[in-house]
Amino acid sequence: MSSVRPLPLIALAMGDPAGISPELTARVLADPEVRAACHIVVIGDRRVLDAGAAVAGCALEVRRQTADAPLVPGDVPLLIDLAHADPATIHCARVTRAGGEFALRNLRVALGLGHVGAVDAVTFTPFNKASMKLAHPGYEDEIVYTAEVTGFTGTAREFNILEGLWNARLTSHVPLSAVAGLITRELVAEGLIFTERAMREAGFAHPRIAVAGLNPHAGDGGHFGREEIDIIAPAVEAMKAKGIACDGPFPADTVFVRARRGDYDAVLTMYHDQGQIAMKLIGFERGVSVLGGFPVPICTPAHGTAFDITGQGIAHPGATRNALLIAARMGAARREASATESRPSTTADEALRALAA
Amino acid sequence: MSSVRPLPLIALAMGDPAGISPELTARVLADPEVRAACHIVVIGDRRVLDAGAAVAGCALEVRRQTADAPLVPGDVPLLIDLAHADPATIHCARVTRAGGEFALRNLRVALGLGHVGAVDAVTFTPFNKASMKLAHPGYEDEIVYTAEVTGFTGTAREFNILEGLWNARLTSHVPLSAVAGLITRELVAEGLIFTERAMREAGFAHPRIAVAGLNPHAGDGGHFGREEIDIIAPAVEAMKAKGIACDGPFPADTVFVRARRGDYDAVLTMYHDQGQIAMKLIGFERGVSVLGGFPVPICTPAHGTAFDITGQGIAHPGATRNALLIAARMGAARREASATESRPSTTADEALRALAA
Repeated sequence: MSSVRPLPLIALAMGDPAGISPELTARVLADPEVRAACHIVVIGDRRVLDAGAAVAGCALEVRRQTADAPLVPGDVPLLIDLAHADPATIHCARVTRAGGEFALRNLRVALGLGHVGAVDAVTFTPFNKASMKLAHPGYEDEIVYTAEVTGFTGTAREFNILEGLWNARLTSHVPLSAVAGLITRELVAEGLIFTERAMREAGFAHPRIAVAGLNPHAGDGGHFGREEIDIIAPAVEAMKAKGIACDGPFPADTVFVRARRGDYDAVLTMYHDQGQIAMKLIGFERGVSVLGGFPVPICTPAHGTAFDITGQGIAHPGATRNALLIAARMGAARREASATESRPSTTADEALRALAA
Repeated sequence: MSSVRPLPLIALAMGDPAGISPELTARVLADPEVRAACHIVVIGDRRVLDAGAAVAGCALEVRRQTADAPLVPGDVPLLIDLAHADPATIHCARVTRAGGEFALRNLRVALGLGHVGAVDAVTFTPFNKASMKLAHPGYEDEIVYTAEVTGFTGTAREFNILEGLWNARLTSHVPLSAVAGLITRELVAEGLIFTERAMREAGFAHPRIAVAGLNPHAGDGGHFGREEIDIIAPAVEAMKAKGIACDGPFPADTVFVRARRGDYDAVLTMYHDQGQIAMKLIGFERGVSVLGGFPVPICTPAHGTAFDITGQGIAHPGATRNALLIAARMGAARREASATESRPSTTADEALRALAA
């Protein structure tokens, strides 16, 4: 019916074939809730996917999509079969260059499709960072790689999402000694705007954001540092005045306790471990990472390739499922906000050629 | 029988009378496990203690001890009744100067008894920091106050203990920007020695200590800071060579996950929030704080006066009970290590006069 909004189209790049990625990919392709929320185009190898479905013990229903034809999504997930990995040659549960190359090639196609607007969001099942570095020596992380291959020069940030709670951080992979010098009013304000926008796209009508302080006891009234008074509080007040539902700065050791009891939807932290200590303790391996700021949202389960349980059919698909569902919501919002109704009819081959690197 | 080692004698100072302290004091005095582990001399007011026992619904069995007679512990807890608070005049569930004065006077007597060696450890039920500041304007925290009144000039540190896991930190109430500059090999080594000694006194034959890194991912091989390579790892190795069962530095966002699954008995953290984010999230209000380094161990429940549930008889005594049991173990170890078999027969009045301030 023409009045029904078309479902978003999500690219799902298969991750490292040596781990639980094939099993997880097969499971989410068969998941009714995921199938009801989005169309999927999976990128990988049919044989590896079949092997994953066999491990998962689930039926696999995909329609083959060639790399030189425009995507036409339908009720059945599409599969761009790059035919680049024979399961017989895969060393299970091992760091290998071949495993990294497989995941990286799938990711490139997915990012290319996102880059040209042929899909509304990109997702991928876990890969192994050591394998990625073997396949691509300069490989640092997903954000750097995505910016590199798409030529993106804006600000991108990682969100960690667990049990409905979002965490974004203002600084990340920098020495602790450098953190305080990087925190400015502009950065706090920009982080709040960035977080609110991403959460609105993910379906929060009015996300409530708690901002962590920098110092112990949030500085205790200036006794142990003045950043809360001079920088963070004024930025929070300014953004509140602009309509963002934010509060703080709160002491870092109680802000997650507050948020978890339901007072807030997100915590904006000042540095890497402030959020990661809390999220990992709550059980972030069950969570989702969202790379926000790129032209298309990118979502992936937070856990790794789980070599220790590979091939046993016991991998829990919850985080991958949530990654797809968040990508579907963000992709739909992105499409709704875009001027054009239809996606460009770019092929996967053309999308790859459109990449910057 | 002369072959049975005498039980340690523990001072228990009643905390703020406006909160759950009287109820908790009455409950632990009636606890069979606590009574089997130590002799207790409680310091406070008989009427307030009776009121606490009435709220708790437990029988109270104490023997009155005058402030001008030497302590002679027996099967029944001793009570030094300072007769300084009539329950009828106490404003329940409120910050008051009178509440602070009551708690502070009890604590002074307990610290005095510890100072002269008349008790083997000091414990106290919760007080309210705002009330303490009203009673003693310069009041900062328990460590500073204890050092002040006993004239102690050495190093004292707070340990937080929860579900058998100990946490000590190398820096505490300082701005985050100052932390990196304070971390030296000497400080890490001294923190490890300090932690091991306190844990041995608390009954760990060979405590296993995990040391947190300072930077994200523990510096990721020097990519985000070199303190792990230049300072922390060499200090850990040096202490390991001296027989301390320590490992690290571990990334701060996984070190508590490791310790909680049983790999370690303690985590030594570099700064306040590194440990406090984790401990508060796990539920530190159920834990115990130990002030280590003073001539006598000082232990207290980590939670506060809980004005919201005062007088209802529902306060959980678990943390106070654990504080007494840890104090009993540490006090016994301290006595065992001391040269003399018997405690000096100092009276409470004499002990108070022996305090420095």
